[in-house]
Amino acid sequence: MFAEFRPEVPAAWRATPVLFLANIDPKLQSSVRDQVTGARLVAADTMNYWIESKRAALIEVLSRVNVFFINDGEIRQLTGERNLVAAARRVRAMGPSVVVVKRGEHGVLVFENDDAFALPAYPLDRVLDPTGAGDAFAGGFLGYLASTGLAGPPDYRRAAVVGSVMASYQVEDFSLDRLKRLEDEEIRDRYARFERLTRFGPLA
Amino acid sequence: MFAEFRPEVPAAWRATPVLFLANIDPKLQSSVRDQVTGARLVAADTMNYWIESKRAALIEVLSRVNVFFINDGEIRQLTGERNLVAAARRVRAMGPSVVVVKRGEHGVLVFENDDAFALPAYPLDRVLDPTGAGDAFAGGFLGYLASTGLAGPPDYRRAAVVGSVMASYQVEDFSLDRLKRLEDEEIRDRYARFERLTRFGPLA
Repeated sequence: MFAEFRPEVPAAWRATPVLFLANIDPKLQSSVRDQVTGARLVAADTMNYWIESKRAALIEVLSRVNVFFINDGEIRQLTGERNLVAAARRVRAMGPSVVVVKRGEHGVLVFENDDAFALPAYPLDRVLDPTGAGDAFAGGFLGYLASTGLAGPPDYRRAAVVGSVMASYQVEDFSLDRLKRLEDEEIRDRYARFERLTRFGPLA
Repeated sequence: MFAEFRPEVPAAWRATPVLFLANIDPKLQSSVRDQVTGARLVAADTMNYWIESKRAALIEVLSRVNVFFINDGEIRQLTGERNLVAAARRVRAMGPSVVVVKRGEHGVLVFENDDAFALPAYPLDRVLDPTGAGDAFAGGFLGYLASTGLAGPPDYRRAAVVGSVMASYQVEDFSLDRLKRLEDEEIRDRYARFERLTRFGPLA
């Protein structure tokens, strides 16, 4: 389907500061990366198919991104490491300073250099359709970072929470139905619920 | 093996304020519960075998405990609910006001009435043997609560963190080897690491 696809980025978009190389043939990801010369923060994801069939091209992409999203099964496939801490260390050695391991209903792990952040998924009492959760997560994560104008060091923890908020809404309905009617206030409300979900006091 | 076992609690232990009915035939759990007349906080766990073979006796135990520890597979088996929020609601309707769902490497969920607390597992780069993690968790959880003297409402969030600290050490070595040489300072250190692992700032 994409065999003849040669994406050409319109001139007006080449200065975009936050670039997401979504899952596709890593050669196309590299080609888009080349064209967006103004990008200051570059993220990518991938899937099992490319890890198996285009490994060298994928590793080339990895050497040129800041943030890499990958699920737990895929990072084990990519690195041959079952342990996620060790697997993330290997991926960071390939280029990205931030590795975000997505674990579906078990939440996300964000490895930034030697620092780890773990966020559980929001416990929903009804999940209609998990399709699109990963893309909603990436959109929220990068949308949050873009909204800060990249002034100062990126806060990947807040970004992961906003991403998880968007993913938690995405799975509540089919297609984009829930996100299309989502209000800003609902995003803030669920962010606050994530705070309540994860907070605990210091040890006396 | 336990067919003729009729535990008799020594008189001096009957006033113990925090009682843990560890995994065994629920009829024996009920018998111990009867004897510890001074208990002010009672916790229990169980396993798939009793859920299947002694369901009525187990439900009788549940009606008499405050805190119930159960893993994700077992709570689905007990309630017939795949969704953990809904499953925990059903278990709370059977008696315990606090339901702690253990998810191994994915952490724990604590449901206290309508409030939920989620804690990821500590990301270890080496797990030697997961045996005993659940018991170490229960020991840390209840040991913390006992250490407070039950003055004021129990803080089940801090208890779950201490339980997770103990479980994270337990799996670092075989048998009780790691816990036997564990220092108080190491418990405090890992508790602080759990804080660092889970903290994020408010949404601006």
